[in-house]
Amino acid sequence: MLRTRFTEAFGIEHPIVQGGMMWVGRAELVAAVANAGALGFITALTQPTPADLRTEIARARDLTDKPFGVNLTILPSITPPPYEEYRQAIIDSGVTIVEIAGANPETHLPHLKDAGVKVIHKCTSVRHAVKAQRVGVDAISIDGFECAGHPGENDIPGLVLIPAAAREIDIPMLASGGFADARGLVAALALGADGVNMGTRFLCTRESAIHPKVKEQIVANSELDTQLIFRTLRNTARVADNSISRKVVEIERAGGTFDDVRELVSGQRGRKVFEDGDLEAGIWSSGMCQGLIHDVPTVAELVARIVGEAEDLITGALTDIVA
Amino acid sequence: MLRTRFTEAFGIEHPIVQGGMMWVGRAELVAAVANAGALGFITALTQPTPADLRTEIARARDLTDKPFGVNLTILPSITPPPYEEYRQAIIDSGVTIVEIAGANPETHLPHLKDAGVKVIHKCTSVRHAVKAQRVGVDAISIDGFECAGHPGENDIPGLVLIPAAAREIDIPMLASGGFADARGLVAALALGADGVNMGTRFLCTRESAIHPKVKEQIVANSELDTQLIFRTLRNTARVADNSISRKVVEIERAGGTFDDVRELVSGQRGRKVFEDGDLEAGIWSSGMCQGLIHDVPTVAELVARIVGEAEDLITGALTDIVA
Repeated sequence: MLRTRFTEAFGIEHPIVQGGMMWVGRAELVAAVANAGALGFITALTQPTPADLRTEIARARDLTDKPFGVNLTILPSITPPPYEEYRQAIIDSGVTIVEIAGANPETHLPHLKDAGVKVIHKCTSVRHAVKAQRVGVDAISIDGFECAGHPGENDIPGLVLIPAAAREIDIPMLASGGFADARGLVAALALGADGVNMGTRFLCTRESAIHPKVKEQIVANSELDTQLIFRTLRNTARVADNSISRKVVEIERAGGTFDDVRELVSGQRGRKVFEDGDLEAGIWSSGMCQGLIHDVPTVAELVARIVGEAEDLITGALTDIVA
Repeated sequence: MLRTRFTEAFGIEHPIVQGGMMWVGRAELVAAVANAGALGFITALTQPTPADLRTEIARARDLTDKPFGVNLTILPSITPPPYEEYRQAIIDSGVTIVEIAGANPETHLPHLKDAGVKVIHKCTSVRHAVKAQRVGVDAISIDGFECAGHPGENDIPGLVLIPAAAREIDIPMLASGGFADARGLVAALALGADGVNMGTRFLCTRESAIHPKVKEQIVANSELDTQLIFRTLRNTARVADNSISRKVVEIERAGGTFDDVRELVSGQRGRKVFEDGDLEAGIWSSGMCQGLIHDVPTVAELVARIVGEAEDLITGALTDIVA
């Protein structure tokens, strides 16, 4: 058992979190993570309406009596989803842990805190982590350059970002981006984090409701097989290398605008990858840690393996180094 | 005391290495590192001729009776330095440890091995590490995206690169890039390395023979204050942010060639920064770990601090996490 300030504050057994993932963060996976003693997050916006989110939360609750959370990602958008309604669905459903990513959590915070919800803010810079701590979030998830999805524009990897943040952050902190195994978990703890957030690694488990071909491709991929798209838009996203992501990068390099790639990067294309296993249908998020992923275990096997190996690493190999 | 396969194989006390640094890797610093029980490297090409290198090695030997090494960086060049003559100077001087960086070490290896020299190959990808192991080097120094100087073109940070390499490498392995403190050292050991290589951190010590203004600037800089130049030439270098490095990036973005920046990036300008403390005279290498550097200690203080804190971290905070 690994006890940290994060496991204590959030009432979970292991300092391992399954972060929000579009199309992936659904009841079955989240419940499996909860039942394994880790903390899973339903992705709010994967549900087409706030009513669907209520149903999804209820489904997860049927599958586990352990705590789980909901991720609410508030990315800049011309026609934003009804964030307040999603937030209310979370509160009404009695969920007590929310991860807010994508932008300043400040406007949502009083509503969530008043309802007794603990808020984790996911961000990609020390500056934003310090700001979130100041406005009163309960924990930080600091997301490095390695991550799948949106790494920000500063390109600071976890080896530097985590200890730099740890110096400024007093509340519990998760390390995110590049983590897939026990080595990473122990490294994160050494660097000053109180646990790790893993996305790609949990995506590649038996219980994640995506097509097996995607999981096989992640196992086949190395750390080199990602692309950074939307660099030119200053809305960088790390996605799996395929013909579509390479094409987007090419169009951007040639000076193309978002309009030139809009159709290629549509969410429905990404959904098609995950649902139909058509790996070239669209872009799909994957992190560099796919180079550390070599199998498709059950969530329970994965969590037990990481915790067991982390314990052995600390009390065995590392302790032996101290002569 | 921290004992690893690296300290055993190379006959040093602590798993900490001061890597080759142009204009910085001189006798006083290298001897101070050796006297602190770590492993320092004289930078061969900082000496204008092989004869000067012989003198520099002799100077270091006057200052310490502990082992030290010489770095030989073999970067692609139209008019290369006389590498064979530098190599012979190293062998004739009785140096028993050489770090080869920049290209395939294969042509130099038989000469060095025949002379009983142990060779560390510094590289930035798993593929090159595997190749170096196959041709018979004694240790790998795997250098992540965070590093000062040349991170390669793959942009894989240490959190992923180190464990990915550890899976393939059986000989002792150093982790390089982004390391400046005990947290980083313990993280590197957890990720599968047998020690750390630090450049920027040793540059920012009392004994490093560069102008104090450079050291003050590193302390003032955050992890955000670096620039990647020569991306367009596929010879990327991470350097400190200043007016010159920003100008080089700007010229490259506008489609400029090496001829357009040649004068700006000349080695003599970089040397002027280090010798005169004119921070805007030219480009100078610095890594992201400058965000973790907050003082200018003596080498002895630095090494003792890192080792002591690493021991405490392993036997204290990390062990306490295992409930």
